[in-house]
Amino acid sequence: MQKQVARKNERVEEVFNLFVKHIQNFLKEANLNHEEYTNFVNWADRLGRAGELPLYADVFLETHVLRAMYTDKPGTQPSLLGPYFIEGSPELEKESGKPYTLTQRPDEAGEVLIFKANVSSTDGMPLANTKVEMWQNDNTGKYSAFDADAPRYNLRGHFYTDENGDFEVKSIVPLPYSIPDQGPTGEFLEYVDQHPMRPAHLHFMFIADGHETLITQVFFEGDEWLETDVADGVRTELVTTLEDKGDHKEASLDFVMRRE
Amino acid sequence: MQKQVARKNERVEEVFNLFVKHIQNFLKEANLNHEEYTNFVNWADRLGRAGELPLYADVFLETHVLRAMYTDKPGTQPSLLGPYFIEGSPELEKESGKPYTLTQRPDEAGEVLIFKANVSSTDGMPLANTKVEMWQNDNTGKYSAFDADAPRYNLRGHFYTDENGDFEVKSIVPLPYSIPDQGPTGEFLEYVDQHPMRPAHLHFMFIADGHETLITQVFFEGDEWLETDVADGVRTELVTTLEDKGDHKEASLDFVMRRE
Repeated sequence: MQKQVARKNERVEEVFNLFVKHIQNFLKEANLNHEEYTNFVNWADRLGRAGELPLYADVFLETHVLRAMYTDKPGTQPSLLGPYFIEGSPELEKESGKPYTLTQRPDEAGEVLIFKANVSSTDGMPLANTKVEMWQNDNTGKYSAFDADAPRYNLRGHFYTDENGDFEVKSIVPLPYSIPDQGPTGEFLEYVDQHPMRPAHLHFMFIADGHETLITQVFFEGDEWLETDVADGVRTELVTTLEDKGDHKEASLDFVMRRE
Repeated sequence: MQKQVARKNERVEEVFNLFVKHIQNFLKEANLNHEEYTNFVNWADRLGRAGELPLYADVFLETHVLRAMYTDKPGTQPSLLGPYFIEGSPELEKESGKPYTLTQRPDEAGEVLIFKANVSSTDGMPLANTKVEMWQNDNTGKYSAFDADAPRYNLRGHFYTDENGDFEVKSIVPLPYSIPDQGPTGEFLEYVDQHPMRPAHLHFMFIADGHETLITQVFFEGDEWLETDVADGVRTELVTTLEDKGDHKEASLDFVMRRE
Protein backbone atom coordinates (compact mmCIF):
# COMPACT_ATOMS: atom_id res chain seq x y z
CA MET A 1 0.00 0.00 0.00
CA GLN A 2 2.65 2.46 1.04
CA LYS A 3 4.65 1.79 -2.12
CA GLN A 4 1.68 2.45 -4.35
CA VAL A 5 1.03 5.76 -2.66
CA ALA A 6 4.69 6.69 -3.06
CA ARG A 7 4.75 5.81 -6.75
CA LYS A 8 1.83 8.10 -7.38
CA ASN A 9 3.33 11.01 -5.55
CA GLU A 10 4.53 13.21 -8.38
CA ARG A 11 5.75 15.90 -6.05
CA VAL A 12 8.10 13.49 -4.29
CA GLU A 13 9.39 12.26 -7.66
CA GLU A 14 9.97 15.87 -8.73
CA VAL A 15 11.90 16.67 -5.55
CA PHE A 16 14.14 13.60 -5.81
CA ASN A 17 14.88 14.25 -9.46
CA LEU A 18 15.85 17.81 -8.62
CA PHE A 19 18.04 16.53 -5.80
CA VAL A 20 20.00 14.26 -8.14
CA LYS A 21 20.22 16.97 -10.78
CA HIS A 22 21.76 19.47 -8.39
CA ILE A 23 24.14 16.95 -6.84
CA GLN A 24 25.28 16.19 -10.38
CA ASN A 25 25.79 19.91 -10.96
CA PHE A 26 27.93 19.94 -7.82
CA LEU A 27 30.05 17.04 -9.08
CA LYS A 28 30.44 18.72 -12.44
CA GLU A 29 31.52 22.08 -11.06
CA ALA A 30 33.74 20.57 -8.36
CA ASN A 31 35.32 18.37 -11.04
CA LEU A 32 36.25 15.75 -8.43
CA ASN A 33 38.75 13.13 -9.37
CA HIS A 34 37.96 9.57 -8.34
CA GLU A 35 39.96 9.75 -5.11
CA GLU A 36 38.30 13.01 -4.07
CA TYR A 37 34.92 11.50 -4.87
CA THR A 38 35.73 8.50 -2.65
CA ASN A 39 36.88 10.75 0.20
CA PHE A 40 33.72 12.80 -0.09
CA VAL A 41 31.47 9.72 -0.05
CA ASN A 42 33.37 8.36 2.96
CA TRP A 43 32.76 11.62 4.85
CA ALA A 44 29.05 11.53 3.95
CA ASP A 45 28.91 7.90 5.11
CA ARG A 46 30.46 8.81 8.48
CA LEU A 47 28.02 11.73 8.81
CA GLY A 48 25.07 9.44 8.08
CA ARG A 49 26.12 6.55 10.30
CA ALA A 50 26.80 8.96 13.18
CA GLY A 51 23.19 10.13 12.90
CA GLU A 52 24.42 13.68 12.24
CA LEU A 53 22.55 14.22 8.97
CA PRO A 54 19.63 16.08 10.61
CA LEU A 55 22.10 18.22 12.57
CA TYR A 56 24.03 19.00 9.41
CA ALA A 57 20.86 19.78 7.49
CA ASP A 58 19.37 21.96 10.23
CA VAL A 59 22.56 23.94 10.64
CA PHE A 60 23.61 24.36 7.02
CA LEU A 61 20.46 24.01 4.96
CA GLU A 62 17.29 24.78 6.91
CA THR A 63 17.95 28.51 6.93
CA HIS A 64 17.99 28.53 3.12
CA VAL A 65 14.62 26.81 2.99
CA LEU A 66 13.24 29.50 5.27
CA ARG A 67 14.78 32.37 3.35
CA ALA A 68 13.41 30.98 0.09
CA MET A 69 9.94 30.61 1.61
CA TYR A 70 9.59 33.81 3.55
CA THR A 71 11.87 36.62 2.50
CA ASP A 72 9.88 39.64 1.29
CA LYS A 73 6.68 38.34 2.84
CA PRO A 74 4.87 40.32 5.54
CA GLY A 75 4.95 39.28 9.18
CA THR A 76 7.77 38.14 11.43
CA GLN A 77 10.58 36.22 9.71
CA PRO A 78 10.86 32.61 10.83
CA SER A 79 14.14 31.10 11.99
CA LEU A 80 15.32 27.51 12.44
CA LEU A 81 13.29 24.91 14.27
CA GLY A 82 16.68 23.26 14.83
CA PRO A 83 17.37 19.79 16.18
CA TYR A 84 16.49 20.54 19.82
CA PHE A 85 12.72 20.88 19.73
CA ILE A 86 10.83 18.00 21.39
CA GLU A 87 7.12 17.31 21.57
CA GLY A 88 5.14 17.17 24.78
CA SER A 89 6.27 20.20 26.75
CA PRO A 90 4.24 20.96 29.89
CA GLU A 91 1.55 23.65 29.91
CA LEU A 92 2.61 26.44 32.23
CA GLU A 93 0.28 27.83 34.88
CA LYS A 94 0.29 31.41 36.06
CA GLU A 95 -0.96 33.50 38.90
CA SER A 96 -3.08 36.48 37.93
CA GLY A 97 -0.95 39.56 37.30
CA LYS A 98 2.34 37.61 37.25
CA PRO A 99 4.36 36.33 34.31
CA TYR A 100 4.46 32.68 33.38
CA THR A 101 7.58 30.89 34.67
CA LEU A 102 9.31 28.62 32.19
CA THR A 103 9.80 25.10 33.66
CA GLN A 104 12.99 25.16 35.68
CA ARG A 105 14.85 23.64 38.59
CA PRO A 106 14.44 25.29 42.02
CA ASP A 107 18.10 26.33 41.89
CA GLU A 108 18.27 27.05 38.13
CA ALA A 109 21.56 28.85 37.50
CA GLY A 110 21.70 31.93 35.31
CA GLU A 111 20.55 35.52 35.09
CA VAL A 112 16.80 35.96 35.53
CA LEU A 113 15.08 37.17 32.35
CA ILE A 114 11.60 38.62 31.99
CA PHE A 115 10.52 38.42 28.35
CA LYS A 116 7.48 40.44 27.23
CA ALA A 117 5.80 40.15 23.85
CA ASN A 118 2.71 40.78 21.81
CA VAL A 119 1.37 38.51 19.07
CA SER A 120 -0.77 39.99 16.32
CA SER A 121 -1.98 39.17 12.83
CA THR A 122 -0.69 40.78 9.63
CA ASP A 123 -4.04 42.57 9.50
CA GLY A 124 -3.17 44.33 12.76
CA MET A 125 -5.54 42.45 15.09
CA PRO A 126 -4.05 41.13 18.35
CA LEU A 127 -4.11 37.32 18.51
CA ALA A 128 -5.60 36.29 21.84
CA ASN A 129 -5.25 32.70 23.03
CA THR A 130 -2.32 31.95 20.69
CA LYS A 131 -0.42 28.85 21.77
CA VAL A 132 3.20 29.74 22.53
CA GLU A 133 5.82 26.95 22.66
CA MET A 134 9.11 28.13 24.17
CA TRP A 135 12.43 26.34 24.62
CA GLN A 136 16.02 27.40 25.29
CA ASN A 137 19.34 26.24 26.68
CA ASP A 138 20.50 26.53 30.26
CA ASN A 139 23.43 28.17 32.00
CA THR A 140 25.77 25.41 30.80
CA GLY A 141 24.70 26.04 27.19
CA LYS A 142 22.82 22.74 26.99
CA TYR A 143 19.27 21.81 26.03
CA SER A 144 17.29 19.49 28.27
CA ALA A 145 16.72 16.06 26.69
CA PHE A 146 20.06 16.47 24.84
CA ASP A 147 23.15 15.54 26.86
CA ALA A 148 22.22 17.79 29.81
CA ASP A 149 21.75 16.68 33.40
CA ALA A 150 18.50 18.63 33.55
CA PRO A 151 15.02 17.01 33.64
CA ARG A 152 13.59 16.28 30.18
CA TYR A 153 11.36 19.36 29.93
CA ASN A 154 13.60 21.80 31.79
CA LEU A 155 13.40 25.28 30.18
CA ARG A 156 10.61 24.07 27.92
CA GLY A 157 6.91 24.79 28.14
CA HIS A 158 3.83 26.15 26.42
CA PHE A 159 1.26 28.76 27.39
CA TYR A 160 -1.25 31.16 25.79
CA THR A 161 -1.45 34.86 24.97
CA ASP A 162 -3.99 36.94 26.90
CA GLU A 163 -6.99 38.82 25.46
CA ASN A 164 -4.67 41.51 24.05
CA GLY A 165 -2.28 39.00 22.44
CA ASP A 166 0.28 39.73 25.16
CA PHE A 167 2.39 37.40 27.25
CA GLU A 168 5.13 37.70 29.85
CA VAL A 169 7.38 34.84 30.78
CA LYS A 170 10.09 34.55 33.40
CA SER A 171 13.12 32.46 32.52
CA ILE A 172 16.90 32.83 32.43
CA VAL A 173 19.11 34.53 29.85
CA PRO A 174 20.16 31.85 27.33
CA LEU A 175 23.82 31.38 26.41
CA PRO A 176 25.74 31.13 23.14
CA TYR A 177 26.76 27.52 22.53
CA SER A 178 28.71 25.27 20.23
CA ILE A 179 26.93 22.80 17.99
CA PRO A 180 28.42 19.27 18.28
CA ASP A 181 31.82 19.55 16.59
CA GLN A 182 33.60 16.31 17.43
CA GLY A 183 32.06 14.24 14.61
CA PRO A 184 31.72 14.52 10.83
CA THR A 185 29.85 17.84 11.14
CA GLY A 186 32.87 19.14 13.01
CA GLU A 187 35.12 17.91 10.20
CA PHE A 188 33.02 19.92 7.77
CA LEU A 189 33.36 23.03 9.94
CA GLU A 190 37.13 22.63 9.93
CA TYR A 191 37.13 22.25 6.18
CA VAL A 192 35.13 25.41 5.54
CA ASP A 193 36.96 27.29 8.30
CA GLN A 194 33.79 28.10 10.27
CA HIS A 195 33.53 28.20 14.06
CA PRO A 196 30.77 26.04 15.63
CA MET A 197 29.07 28.80 17.70
CA ARG A 198 25.50 29.99 17.71
CA PRO A 199 24.57 33.29 19.41
CA ALA A 200 22.33 33.07 22.49
CA HIS A 201 18.65 32.75 21.54
CA LEU A 202 15.16 31.89 22.74
CA HIS A 203 13.09 29.50 20.60
CA PHE A 204 9.40 30.16 19.97
CA MET A 205 6.63 28.43 18.05
CA PHE A 206 3.30 30.26 17.75
CA ILE A 207 0.10 28.46 16.78
CA ALA A 208 -3.09 30.46 16.11
CA ASP A 209 -6.29 29.57 14.25
CA GLY A 210 -6.34 30.75 10.66
CA HIS A 211 -2.62 31.59 10.65
CA GLU A 212 0.60 29.95 9.46
CA THR A 213 2.48 28.42 12.39
CA LEU A 214 5.40 30.73 13.14
CA ILE A 215 8.67 29.09 14.23
CA THR A 216 11.32 31.61 15.11
CA GLN A 217 14.07 32.69 17.50
CA VAL A 218 14.94 35.81 19.50
CA PHE A 219 18.52 37.10 19.69
CA PHE A 220 20.20 39.80 21.76
CA GLU A 221 22.18 42.85 20.71
CA GLY A 222 25.87 42.74 21.54
CA ASP A 223 26.22 38.97 21.23
CA GLU A 224 29.63 38.30 19.74
CA TRP A 225 28.30 35.54 17.45
CA LEU A 226 25.40 37.47 15.86
CA GLU A 227 27.28 38.16 12.62
CA THR A 228 28.76 34.71 12.15
CA ASP A 229 26.08 32.34 13.55
CA VAL A 230 27.10 28.90 12.27
CA ALA A 231 23.45 28.19 11.42
CA ASP A 232 22.82 31.58 9.79
CA GLY A 233 19.60 31.89 11.81
CA VAL A 234 19.82 35.58 12.76
CA ARG A 235 17.43 38.08 11.14
CA THR A 236 17.72 41.78 12.01
CA GLU A 237 14.11 42.02 13.15
CA LEU A 238 14.63 39.10 15.56
CA VAL A 239 17.34 40.91 17.53
CA THR A 240 16.22 42.67 20.71
CA THR A 241 17.91 44.40 23.66
CA LEU A 242 18.64 42.95 27.08
CA GLU A 243 17.85 45.72 29.55
CA ASP A 244 19.50 45.63 32.95
CA LYS A 245 16.91 45.91 35.75
CA GLY A 246 19.29 45.37 38.67
CA ASP A 247 18.37 41.91 39.92
CA HIS A 248 17.17 40.75 36.50
CA LYS A 249 17.20 41.44 32.78
CA GLU A 250 14.25 42.38 30.63
CA ALA A 251 13.67 42.02 26.91
CA SER A 252 10.71 42.31 24.58
CA LEU A 253 9.74 41.67 20.98
CA ASP A 254 6.48 41.69 19.07
CA PHE A 255 5.51 38.92 16.65
CA VAL A 256 3.27 39.18 13.61
CA MET A 257 1.66 36.02 12.20
CA ARG A 258 0.57 35.54 8.59
CA ARG A 259 -2.97 34.59 7.71
CA GLU A 260 -3.22 31.18 6.05
CA MET B 1 47.84 17.83 13.74
CA GLN B 2 45.15 16.36 11.54
CA LYS B 3 42.95 19.39 12.06
CA GLN B 4 45.70 21.78 11.04
CA VAL B 5 46.31 19.86 7.86
CA ALA B 6 42.59 19.92 7.10
CA ARG B 7 42.30 23.64 7.67
CA LYS B 8 45.04 24.30 5.18
CA ASN B 9 43.52 22.13 2.50
CA GLU B 10 42.01 24.73 0.19
CA ARG B 11 40.77 22.13 -2.25
CA VAL B 12 38.67 20.43 0.43
CA GLU B 13 37.26 23.79 1.50
CA GLU B 14 36.41 24.57 -2.12
CA VAL B 15 34.64 21.23 -2.59
CA PHE B 16 32.58 21.59 0.59
CA ASN B 17 31.58 25.14 -0.27
CA LEU B 18 30.45 23.99 -3.71
CA PHE B 19 28.51 21.15 -2.09
CA VAL B 20 26.56 23.54 0.13
CA LYS B 21 26.02 25.96 -2.75
CA HIS B 22 24.48 23.31 -4.98
CA ILE B 23 22.36 21.82 -2.22
CA GLN B 24 21.05 25.33 -1.64
CA ASN B 25 20.29 25.61 -5.35
CA PHE B 26 18.35 22.37 -5.03
CA LEU B 27 16.34 23.71 -2.09
CA LYS B 28 15.65 26.92 -3.98
CA GLU B 29 14.46 25.23 -7.17
CA ALA B 30 12.49 22.52 -5.34
CA ASN B 31 10.89 25.27 -3.25
CA LEU B 32 10.27 22.83 -0.39
CA ASN B 33 7.88 23.83 2.30
CA HIS B 34 8.92 23.13 5.87
CA GLU B 35 7.09 19.80 6.06
CA GLU B 36 8.63 18.60 2.78
CA TYR B 37 12.04 19.69 4.02
CA THR B 38 11.53 17.67 7.22
CA ASN B 39 10.42 14.59 5.24
CA PHE B 40 13.43 14.89 2.99
CA VAL B 41 15.85 15.21 5.92
CA ASN B 42 14.22 12.20 7.60
CA TRP B 43 14.75 10.12 4.45
CA ALA B 44 18.40 11.21 4.25
CA ASP B 45 18.80 10.34 7.94
CA ARG B 46 17.41 6.82 7.36
CA LEU B 47 19.70 6.42 4.34
CA GLY B 48 22.72 7.48 6.37
CA ARG B 49 21.97 5.42 9.48
CA ALA B 50 21.33 2.33 7.32
CA GLY B 51 24.85 2.75 5.92
CA GLU B 52 23.40 3.07 2.41
CA LEU B 53 25.01 6.39 1.56
CA PRO B 54 27.93 4.80 -0.36
CA LEU B 55 25.49 2.55 -2.21
CA TYR B 56 23.32 5.51 -3.11
CA ALA B 57 26.32 7.56 -4.20
CA ASP B 58 27.87 4.77 -6.26
CA VAL B 59 24.61 4.00 -8.03
CA PHE B 60 23.32 7.52 -8.65
CA LEU B 61 26.36 9.77 -8.63
CA GLU B 62 29.61 7.95 -9.44
CA THR B 63 28.76 7.61 -13.11
CA HIS B 64 28.48 11.38 -13.42
CA VAL B 65 31.91 11.85 -11.89
CA LEU B 66 33.31 9.45 -14.47
CA ARG B 67 31.51 11.05 -17.39
CA ALA B 68 32.74 14.47 -16.34
CA MET B 69 36.32 13.20 -16.04
CA TYR B 70 36.63 11.00 -19.09
CA THR B 71 34.16 11.68 -21.86
CA ASP B 72 35.93 12.78 -25.06
CA LYS B 73 39.29 11.51 -23.82
CA PRO B 74 41.18 8.78 -25.69
CA GLY B 75 41.36 5.23 -24.36
CA THR B 76 38.75 2.93 -22.89
CA GLN B 77 35.94 4.63 -20.97
CA PRO B 78 35.89 3.81 -17.26
CA SER B 79 32.77 2.60 -15.50
CA LEU B 80 31.80 2.36 -11.84
CA LEU B 81 34.06 0.89 -9.21
CA GLY B 82 30.79 0.27 -7.34
CA PRO B 83 30.35 -0.83 -3.74
CA TYR B 84 31.44 -4.47 -4.25
CA PHE B 85 35.18 -4.17 -4.77
CA ILE B 86 37.28 -5.44 -1.88
CA GLU B 87 41.04 -5.35 -1.38
CA GLY B 88 43.25 -8.40 -1.07
CA SER B 89 42.10 -10.69 -3.88
CA PRO B 90 44.29 -13.77 -4.47
CA GLU B 91 46.85 -13.82 -7.28
CA LEU B 92 45.81 -16.44 -9.83
CA GLU B 93 48.25 -19.06 -11.11
CA LYS B 94 48.14 -20.54 -14.57
CA GLU B 95 49.47 -23.47 -16.48
CA SER B 96 51.37 -22.62 -19.63
CA GLY B 97 49.08 -22.38 -22.66
CA LYS B 98 45.90 -22.38 -20.57
CA PRO B 99 43.72 -19.45 -19.41
CA TYR B 100 43.73 -18.22 -15.84
CA THR B 101 40.81 -19.57 -13.80
CA LEU B 102 39.02 -17.00 -11.63
CA THR B 103 38.81 -18.17 -8.00
CA GLN B 104 35.74 -20.40 -7.70
CA ARG B 105 34.16 -23.26 -5.86
CA PRO B 106 34.71 -26.80 -7.22
CA ASP B 107 31.00 -26.98 -8.08
CA GLU B 108 30.57 -23.33 -9.09
CA ALA B 109 27.15 -23.05 -10.77
CA GLY B 110 26.71 -21.13 -14.01
CA GLU B 111 27.67 -21.14 -17.67
CA VAL B 112 31.42 -21.39 -18.26
CA LEU B 113 32.87 -18.23 -19.82
CA ILE B 114 36.26 -17.79 -21.49
CA PHE B 115 37.09 -14.08 -21.64
CA LYS B 116 39.95 -12.95 -23.92
CA ALA B 117 41.41 -9.46 -23.98
CA ASN B 118 44.33 -7.29 -24.93
CA VAL B 119 45.59 -4.30 -22.98
CA SER B 120 47.49 -1.56 -24.80
CA SER B 121 48.50 2.06 -24.32
CA THR B 122 46.94 5.02 -26.12
CA ASP B 123 50.21 5.22 -28.07
CA GLY B 124 49.45 1.77 -29.54
CA MET B 125 52.03 -0.25 -27.59
CA PRO B 126 50.82 -3.47 -25.93
CA LEU B 127 51.07 -3.31 -22.13
CA ALA B 128 52.83 -6.44 -20.92
CA ASN B 129 52.73 -7.35 -17.23
CA THR B 130 49.71 -5.13 -16.52
CA LYS B 131 48.02 -6.07 -13.23
CA VAL B 132 44.41 -7.11 -13.86
CA GLU B 133 41.94 -7.17 -10.95
CA MET B 134 38.71 -8.96 -11.82
CA TRP B 135 35.51 -9.45 -9.83
CA GLN B 136 31.92 -10.43 -10.64
CA ASN B 137 28.76 -11.92 -9.20
CA ASP B 138 27.82 -15.60 -9.11
CA ASN B 139 24.95 -17.65 -10.44
CA THR B 140 22.67 -16.37 -7.66
CA GLY B 141 23.47 -12.77 -8.67
CA LYS B 142 25.49 -12.16 -5.50
CA TYR B 143 29.01 -10.91 -4.84
CA SER B 144 31.23 -12.82 -2.46
CA ALA B 145 31.87 -10.93 0.81
CA PHE B 146 28.40 -9.32 0.42
CA ASP B 147 25.51 -11.45 1.70
CA ALA B 148 26.52 -14.52 -0.36
CA ASP B 149 27.28 -17.97 1.03
CA ALA B 150 30.45 -18.07 -1.08
CA PRO B 151 33.97 -17.81 0.35
CA ARG B 152 35.23 -14.23 0.71
CA TYR B 153 37.26 -14.09 -2.50
CA ASN B 154 35.03 -16.28 -4.67
CA LEU B 155 34.98 -14.98 -8.25
CA ARG B 156 37.66 -12.45 -7.37
CA GLY B 157 41.34 -12.49 -8.29
CA HIS B 158 44.23 -10.71 -9.94
CA PHE B 159 46.72 -11.73 -12.59
CA TYR B 160 48.99 -10.19 -15.26
CA THR B 161 48.97 -9.68 -19.02
CA ASP B 162 51.54 -11.61 -21.06
CA GLU B 163 54.33 -10.15 -23.20
CA ASN B 164 51.79 -9.13 -25.87
CA GLY B 165 49.43 -7.47 -23.42
CA ASP B 166 47.01 -10.39 -23.76
CA PHE B 167 45.17 -12.41 -21.16
CA GLU B 168 42.58 -15.17 -21.10
CA VAL B 169 40.54 -16.00 -18.04
CA LYS B 170 38.03 -18.77 -17.40
CA SER B 171 35.06 -17.89 -15.23
CA ILE B 172 31.27 -18.06 -15.42
CA VAL B 173 28.82 -15.77 -17.19
CA PRO B 174 27.72 -13.09 -14.68
CA LEU B 175 24.03 -12.36 -14.10
CA PRO B 176 21.92 -9.22 -14.02
CA TYR B 177 21.03 -8.37 -10.43
CA SER B 178 19.04 -6.02 -8.27
CA ILE B 179 20.79 -3.49 -6.06
CA PRO B 180 19.48 -3.58 -2.46
CA ASP B 181 15.98 -2.12 -2.69
CA GLN B 182 14.41 -2.81 0.70
CA GLY B 183 15.88 0.23 2.48
CA PRO B 184 15.97 3.99 1.91
CA THR B 185 17.68 3.54 -1.49
CA GLY B 186 14.71 1.40 -2.50
CA GLU B 187 12.36 4.16 -1.33
CA PHE B 188 14.19 6.54 -3.63
CA LEU B 189 13.84 4.12 -6.57
CA GLU B 190 10.10 3.94 -5.96
CA TYR B 191 9.88 7.69 -5.85
CA VAL B 192 11.67 8.22 -9.15
CA ASP B 193 9.95 5.22 -10.74
CA GLN B 194 13.19 3.37 -11.57
CA HIS B 195 13.70 -0.41 -11.41
CA PRO B 196 16.66 -1.61 -9.28
CA MET B 197 18.34 -3.81 -11.95
CA ARG B 198 21.85 -3.71 -13.33
CA PRO B 199 22.74 -5.61 -16.53
CA ALA B 200 25.19 -8.51 -16.18
CA HIS B 201 28.81 -7.33 -16.12
CA LEU B 202 32.41 -8.23 -15.35
CA HIS B 203 34.46 -5.77 -13.26
CA PHE B 204 38.05 -4.99 -14.16
CA MET B 205 40.77 -2.76 -12.75
CA PHE B 206 43.98 -2.41 -14.76
CA ILE B 207 47.21 -1.10 -13.23
CA ALA B 208 50.23 -0.43 -15.46
CA ASP B 209 53.35 1.69 -14.89
CA GLY B 210 53.12 5.17 -16.36
CA HIS B 211 49.37 4.89 -17.00
CA GLU B 212 46.17 6.00 -15.28
CA THR B 213 44.55 3.11 -13.43
CA LEU B 214 41.57 2.00 -15.50
CA ILE B 215 38.46 0.86 -13.62
CA THR B 216 35.75 -0.39 -15.92
CA GLN B 217 33.11 -3.02 -16.64
CA VAL B 218 32.23 -5.32 -19.54
CA PHE B 219 28.61 -5.83 -20.63
CA PHE B 220 26.94 -8.24 -23.07
CA GLU B 221 24.75 -7.56 -26.08
CA GLY B 222 21.12 -8.59 -25.71
CA ASP B 223 20.95 -7.99 -21.96
CA GLU B 224 17.48 -6.65 -21.24
CA TRP B 225 18.79 -4.07 -18.74
CA LEU B 226 21.47 -2.46 -20.93
CA GLU B 227 19.36 0.58 -21.77
CA THR B 228 18.01 1.23 -18.30
CA ASP B 229 20.90 0.22 -15.98
CA VAL B 230 19.96 1.70 -12.58
CA ALA B 231 23.59 2.83 -12.14
CA ASP B 232 23.97 4.21 -15.69
CA GLY B 233 27.28 2.35 -16.01
CA VAL B 234 26.94 1.09 -19.59
CA ARG B 235 29.09 2.65 -22.34
CA THR B 236 28.71 1.45 -25.95
CA GLU B 237 32.37 0.52 -26.28
CA LEU B 238 32.13 -1.67 -23.16
CA VAL B 239 29.46 -3.95 -24.66
CA THR B 240 30.71 -7.19 -26.21
CA THR B 241 29.13 -10.38 -27.59
CA LEU B 242 28.69 -13.69 -25.83
CA GLU B 243 29.53 -16.34 -28.42
CA ASP B 244 28.09 -19.81 -27.97
CA LYS B 245 30.84 -22.46 -28.17
CA GLY B 246 28.68 -25.46 -27.28
CA ASP B 247 29.84 -26.35 -23.76
CA HIS B 248 30.88 -22.77 -22.94
CA LYS B 249 30.58 -19.16 -23.95
CA GLU B 250 33.34 -16.90 -25.20
CA ALA B 251 33.68 -13.14 -25.19
CA SER B 252 36.46 -10.67 -25.81
CA LEU B 253 37.23 -6.98 -25.53
CA ASP B 254 40.35 -4.89 -25.87
CA PHE B 255 41.30 -2.19 -23.38
CA VAL B 256 43.32 0.96 -24.00
CA MET B 257 44.97 2.73 -21.05
CA ARG B 258 45.87 6.42 -20.92
CA ARG B 259 49.39 7.59 -20.24
CA GLU B 260 49.71 9.55 -17.00
